[in-house]
Amino acid sequence: MKYTDCIHVSLVKEAGRVLQDVGRRKLTVVTAESCTAGLIAATMSEGEGASNTLHGGFVVYTKANKAKALGISKALLDREGSVTRQVAERMLAAALKRSPADIALAVTGVLGPEPDEDGNPVGLIFIGCQRRGELPVVERNQYRKARPGALRQRTVKDALRLLQRVAQSR
Amino acid sequence: MKYTDCIHVSLVKEAGRVLQDVGRRKLTVVTAESCTAGLIAATMSEGEGASNTLHGGFVVYTKANKAKALGISKALLDREGSVTRQVAERMLAAALKRSPADIALAVTGVLGPEPDEDGNPVGLIFIGCQRRGELPVVERNQYRKARPGALRQRTVKDALRLLQRVAQSR
Repeated sequence: MKYTDCIHVSLVKEAGRVLQDVGRRKLTVVTAESCTAGLIAATMSEGEGASNTLHGGFVVYTKANKAKALGISKALLDREGSVTRQVAERMLAAALKRSPADIALAVTGVLGPEPDEDGNPVGLIFIGCQRRGELPVVERNQYRKARPGALRQRTVKDALRLLQRVAQSR
Repeated sequence: MKYTDCIHVSLVKEAGRVLQDVGRRKLTVVTAESCTAGLIAATMSEGEGASNTLHGGFVVYTKANKAKALGISKALLDREGSVTRQVAERMLAAALKRSPADIALAVTGVLGPEPDEDGNPVGLIFIGCQRRGELPVVERNQYRKARPGALRQRTVKDALRLLQRVAQSR
């Protein structure tokens, strides 16, 4: 395994490949990240092609910040928890509303090592992607239980894959 | 050198140490990151003590997103560029306004390998920190020219150090 000074090089290379493809399509990206907490945006920024393609992102680690920074209903979060398809969809819509980007990429889930405060199991991760003006695509993943680091890496890779698929559609 | 599956372990350990200290003081944190693009928040989230201390952050990689996501004046950004003390201060104020956190930590600078679009040199990095209701502290760093990865690592470490200093004040 090889690394940049900060982030695993396989993630950075993968992000660079995807962002260059997104950039060739003249599309720009924003992230909304709960459990990955900015890792997807940071990884993309290290890859090639970020400067013309990545606008940035929202890191919403707590429910309080999902409500305050993205305007997601506190009642919804309290009632259903943070790890649902609906929350992923709200994160996508809010990120598009609050950035100039053409595509939003959102992640909410449980990296562990413990279940979350609402009892959602480790490895349950929703990954969503939406082009401005189109319907959101949200994938529900129940990854096999693993170390948080391995789950995090898998989540970043699958998020990048979904971003590429949505960028290539149409 | 050792690593977690995603991020350099020395950064994660340092972040864990600082966040635990911040948590003992019952303070919570939000980041506003330009050139580091979420790496500080992501690194903190991997460290111990993140769940009660880290609310999240704003990744504002482009000027357009600094304006849209954080409400920073487009005229100011166009006139003076993104890498100034004043922009760092605006990022701090906006992050506190748009999150429930007690302390904001902001970074704007040039990691390279090229100077930025406004001609700011590689290694010029402003790191700011502000407690809610207090004045901002902003450090201007002109790091020696180095690989972007090494500069990025140094910037994360110095940001964590400033966060700890501000959390310990009073």
